[in-house]
Amino acid sequence: MSKIKVGVLGATGAVGQRFAQLLTDHPYFDLTVLAASERSAGKTYREATNWILTQPMPDHLATMTVQEMALDLDCDLVFSALPTNSAREWETQYAAAGYGVFSNAGAHRMDSDVPLLIPEVNPEHLDLLPTQQAAQGFKRGFIVTNPNCTSIPMTMALAPLHSQFGVEAVIATSMQAVSGAGYPGVPSLDIIDNILPFVAESEEVKMGQEPNKMLGFSNGQEVEMAGIRISAHCNRVPVSDGHLVTVSVSFKNKPSLGDILEAWQTWEPLPQQLNLPFAPQPPLVIRAENNRPQPRLDRDAGRGMATTVGRLRPCDVMDVRFVALAHNTVRGAAGGSVLNAELMYAQGQLDVFRQKTAASV
Amino acid sequence: MSKIKVGVLGATGAVGQRFAQLLTDHPYFDLTVLAASERSAGKTYREATNWILTQPMPDHLATMTVQEMALDLDCDLVFSALPTNSAREWETQYAAAGYGVFSNAGAHRMDSDVPLLIPEVNPEHLDLLPTQQAAQGFKRGFIVTNPNCTSIPMTMALAPLHSQFGVEAVIATSMQAVSGAGYPGVPSLDIIDNILPFVAESEEVKMGQEPNKMLGFSNGQEVEMAGIRISAHCNRVPVSDGHLVTVSVSFKNKPSLGDILEAWQTWEPLPQQLNLPFAPQPPLVIRAENNRPQPRLDRDAGRGMATTVGRLRPCDVMDVRFVALAHNTVRGAAGGSVLNAELMYAQGQLDVFRQKTAASV
Amino acid sequence: MSKIKVGVLGATGAVGQRFAQLLTDHPYFDLTVLAASERSAGKTYREATNWILTQPMPDHLATMTVQEMALDLDCDLVFSALPTNSAREWETQYAAAGYGVFSNAGAHRMDSDVPLLIPEVNPEHLDLLPTQQAAQGFKRGFIVTNPNCTSIPMTMALAPLHSQFGVEAVIATSMQAVSGAGYPGVPSLDIIDNILPFVAESEEVKMGQEPNKMLGFSNGQEVEMAGIRISAHCNRVPVSDGHLVTVSVSFKNKPSLGDILEAWQTWEPLPQQLNLPFAPQPPLVIRAENNRPQPRLDRDAGRGMATTVGRLRPCDVMDVRFVALAHNTVRGAAGGSVLNAELMYAQGQLDVFRQKTAASV
Amino acid sequence: MSKIKVGVLGATGAVGQRFAQLLTDHPYFDLTVLAASERSAGKTYREATNWILTQPMPDHLATMTVQEMALDLDCDLVFSALPTNSAREWETQYAAAGYGVFSNAGAHRMDSDVPLLIPEVNPEHLDLLPTQQAAQGFKRGFIVTNPNCTSIPMTMALAPLHSQFGVEAVIATSMQAVSGAGYPGVPSLDIIDNILPFVAESEEVKMGQEPNKMLGFSNGQEVEMAGIRISAHCNRVPVSDGHLVTVSVSFKNKPSLGDILEAWQTWEPLPQQLNLPFAPQPPLVIRAENNRPQPRLDRDAGRGMATTVGRLRPCDVMDVRFVALAHNTVRGAAGGSVLNAELMYAQGQLDVFRQKTAASV
Repeated sequence: MSKIKVGVLGATGAVGQRFAQLLTDHPYFDLTVLAASERSAGKTYREATNWILTQPMPDHLATMTVQEMALDLDCDLVFSALPTNSAREWETQYAAAGYGVFSNAGAHRMDSDVPLLIPEVNPEHLDLLPTQQAAQGFKRGFIVTNPNCTSIPMTMALAPLHSQFGVEAVIATSMQAVSGAGYPGVPSLDIIDNILPFVAESEEVKMGQEPNKMLGFSNGQEVEMAGIRISAHCNRVPVSDGHLVTVSVSFKNKPSLGDILEAWQTWEPLPQQLNLPFAPQPPLVIRAENNRPQPRLDRDAGRGMATTVGRLRPCDVMDVRFVALAHNTVRGAAGGSVLNAELMYAQGQLDVFRQKTAASV
Repeated sequence: MSKIKVGVLGATGAVGQRFAQLLTDHPYFDLTVLAASERSAGKTYREATNWILTQPMPDHLATMTVQEMALDLDCDLVFSALPTNSAREWETQYAAAGYGVFSNAGAHRMDSDVPLLIPEVNPEHLDLLPTQQAAQGFKRGFIVTNPNCTSIPMTMALAPLHSQFGVEAVIATSMQAVSGAGYPGVPSLDIIDNILPFVAESEEVKMGQEPNKMLGFSNGQEVEMAGIRISAHCNRVPVSDGHLVTVSVSFKNKPSLGDILEAWQTWEPLPQQLNLPFAPQPPLVIRAENNRPQPRLDRDAGRGMATTVGRLRPCDVMDVRFVALAHNTVRGAAGGSVLNAELMYAQGQLDVFRQKTAASV
Repeated sequence: MSKIKVGVLGATGAVGQRFAQLLTDHPYFDLTVLAASERSAGKTYREATNWILTQPMPDHLATMTVQEMALDLDCDLVFSALPTNSAREWETQYAAAGYGVFSNAGAHRMDSDVPLLIPEVNPEHLDLLPTQQAAQGFKRGFIVTNPNCTSIPMTMALAPLHSQFGVEAVIATSMQAVSGAGYPGVPSLDIIDNILPFVAESEEVKMGQEPNKMLGFSNGQEVEMAGIRISAHCNRVPVSDGHLVTVSVSFKNKPSLGDILEAWQTWEPLPQQLNLPFAPQPPLVIRAENNRPQPRLDRDAGRGMATTVGRLRPCDVMDVRFVALAHNTVRGAAGGSVLNAELMYAQGQLDVFRQKTAASV
Repeated sequence: MSKIKVGVLGATGAVGQRFAQLLTDHPYFDLTVLAASERSAGKTYREATNWILTQPMPDHLATMTVQEMALDLDCDLVFSALPTNSAREWETQYAAAGYGVFSNAGAHRMDSDVPLLIPEVNPEHLDLLPTQQAAQGFKRGFIVTNPNCTSIPMTMALAPLHSQFGVEAVIATSMQAVSGAGYPGVPSLDIIDNILPFVAESEEVKMGQEPNKMLGFSNGQEVEMAGIRISAHCNRVPVSDGHLVTVSVSFKNKPSLGDILEAWQTWEPLPQQLNLPFAPQPPLVIRAENNRPQPRLDRDAGRGMATTVGRLRPCDVMDVRFVALAHNTVRGAAGGSVLNAELMYAQGQLDVFRQKTAASV
């Protein structure tokens, strides 16, 4: 079967680099376009990029020429690593021009007709796309978003519990890696021998809203929010990669600790059933040790796509508490977006692009 | 007025060093004894100690000879930096032998007739001492303890709120400095580029119990616990000094944010009224910036004795939330214990020792 | 005696903040002006500044109004924390306008008629000033510079040795704190769990040139360089403050280790003889332990103005080797510049400004 | 061809874990024995081990039973991760009992008849083994050692230069990762926001001796030392893995920078020619950027077995200088030892063990 041509928007930044890395040699997608601002256009990717990932830049990326952002890119899908403020307009324009847009930006996440997607959690929210296309006048194009990096580990851990026991409220404290702030991001003077008890004005707001949308019910027109009260304390810590979250939860139907463990252990969501390339097996790694998960030891579980949970125990105020961790720039950004695209590909929802590609050959 | 002679038990360890440093040139106390295990006895303090504090060892400490733990030390008060398991017996023996014991150890904190004291919070709990002396057969001796380092910032912030609004429940997540584990303590491989979501089995238990005792009511015989439900998630972070705690609270009498701010700002507890040497002015430093308190910038407030609070805002699950920080080895250990002694001194409760000292001159 | 009015140029940046802090309540100088770019002008210092020092901003600084850079400032001396490229012109203009300029910038350091000054090392180089004033047409104004932060600890340690034994060559490796790069400076992603074996193109050049000027001979017209071959490897390390340098040295007249120790111990240079306010006593702290100096434990020696040396031992390739450390933003920047001004004040070289001040009152 | 059965001595410690990890699924060797002290014996490897590596413990290791150190282990080769003091006797006993011993310990490295081996550097030194076996009365057994972790990157970089240009002298400053001290190793309080200018009394001695043995000439009886004067300053830095070394070198036959680059680029030593499983291709990764190598970005080059060099430039005191880096627990310890064994295997020098194995089947 023919691969689909894909491009990365904002390809030279921190998330853009991760997209480029993860899309190299992908079984479904053929990375043909690296697009960025005028400043980088015309340079090779090696020249244009201050490569910050620990794995070296793949050779074939190094020699690709960076293109300026434009609506005639030689690809059918675009993965957007644009900053939120420029993402709002560009992503709509790309969708209007017929591209499938998979966005890591915050701009459209809470739009009523835009799926905010974790494939393990709410794959059925893709049923919003016809509504979106009709409302926005997109013909073939669309916008699908992935959530904020800090919402991921918490939502992954809560998803199999919410469906069975009904999550009522959550109090969470995040300890977030500096890579979540991009590059140059957090000044080193701010973080050596230090903690910042603040990430961004919007961070705690997103933590409150996004899980409610993802755990909500889509009727195909819009999403009915899950109605979970969420309070998040977001902190920046001297860690390179991996967001750690302590979570206290209360439930409608009070589960035992054993019920929760079983719900986690037996969870086999759609991406794992479909055996998607980026789907971690299992989606939740459950650690029994009392000092896990840890960012340095657990962030790469499932090649950075798994969520690791541990320290499940009763909460003296709410019902239970636990700790969750996920890799913030793999699962929490580029990798999550790629998995969104894989889900649509595997369900045939991208066939229109495959046919076009075939025709154009 | 004559000073009282004091000694430090466990003087060569991390907390013992801090005691020795803080008691140097103290206006009330004359540091005459540094006691430690047999291994160190007979050496000068410089020889016996791997000094880990950033300020150099005071000269007059360096040449003092370390003594072996014994019940005939040439002092009237002892400050105990003993590990919990050896503290239980030794502290009782010292009290029985007529010494006033100010302990940083966990051994006796929850004993029904032992004051667990923060002078700003529960100075009246010293009324347990006659009961203790009668029950234990101590004549002049006694045991007074200070709380766990992580309980301090939270309890300091809650104290003026509890008396006015009635704290019902608290969910807290701590980010604790490595110095809290003593020396050598946390291996560097465990904490570089990492967070440990676990401190010790007992840590979260202490966080649940100790504030309830300190915020409880003493009838002179025992303490009626405050009945606050507390759930703590304790974490170790790559910070040298300063424990940071995120706190969500619910109250009986719902205060506004303004009510809380006013309660904090107008709080003037006893040690500040008495102008005790180690009492920070003010006891609570309130930061308005959205990214404070931070360990590196705020731990030394009030020469390490103040608690800094910030980020006061509504909580979407409980009533309000905020962040609190205190220096864990100054206020949270040795400095807290010295302040306990200062309170008793200023209230005349140590006069028996001053008279003895005067007589012996 | 009347104080001299002083201002800080570039007062809102990292070095400017340190100048403002150190000049607060100075016995010789009265800080009357905080000058910065147009963007900050008109704001209070608190509003204009992202204060990054661990000690809180002094209250009287907080309410001062930041002025725009101009040549009619109400002061007689200016301390320049300007970036090198803007320093070149501004500093000359200020000197031409009659101000005494004490500069931390690199712009004029190697100018033939500009003293590059460490008061302990080459106080006699101030004899260049008449030549400078004549050549540049300055009437009362002048420019005096302090060296690069990394040159300081090495030059301080070498100075008493060079005069006795003749330093021929030096190989040094620096491990430099991130505060040396200013703020925001080094991105945290670059330095967590990492070392950067590079600081700036110019850094190793400065390390080669500046000590040669400072240890050279001034004939009042220009400085004859010392002719020491210096090779420096400069590295950035995950440390907040304090530059550590390993040094291997060869000498003309081969001293024993004892000779070197004695030269260090008996060194009593001019600032210490004059008992200048910022002169550390002693200028060199000599540590006998095999694991000192360390940045965290030794950077604050002499209130950040001392240089700490240790690990003196033979070198199997050159003659001897040792380790030196100094606080890079105190002694290595603002504090060094203040000491330069103190030296001139104490020697009466600033009397012209004191008289003017007196007259203007 | 049949694999050879191998065991790990000291299997539960930091280096032992790395051996166990690297020997899992090895094409030449079959890991059949994990031996440790009495305290661990009888437990499963999972129970006995505080696993500190970032990759999870391989499943088949987890269930292996740890055996007590004894001379009747079911294997033919042993990889020794023993501490130096216990290594001296145990390793000799194992060799005497007929085992081939590949040791990471320092005990026997400088013994005249023991090869101190980097397969890329001095594979011919294995000609010492007949002398060793005759002198020690070993029949089939032998001892082969690998060098200190800090000597590796420097020696790898110097080897192709020494053979062509004759290295005369070296001044090196190391910045060593904390994993080099094992576990628990360096206390976190010593290394947060800090550098230790000291590793161990013996570290700088090893840096001076070991390269001279490895770059020396073996006549089959003993090794004539290379006669290079080496001066090393060893430091501990807040990095998890990867030793960085700045190096200044002088040569007999003065090469140009281009000559050196060419010598590095064209170096194709024996392990690479033999295409040994652990031999990195290329052995030296040459980085052109001015800020490389960096521990976090370059330590995993060649799956942790390559040495990365960069910043080649003239030295103002000696001839040239550069920076070198290698992974200290992979190439610098367990991985280096495994490569030693691979070299002997590929050259048929372990056939006696393969035949025995085949016969015993």
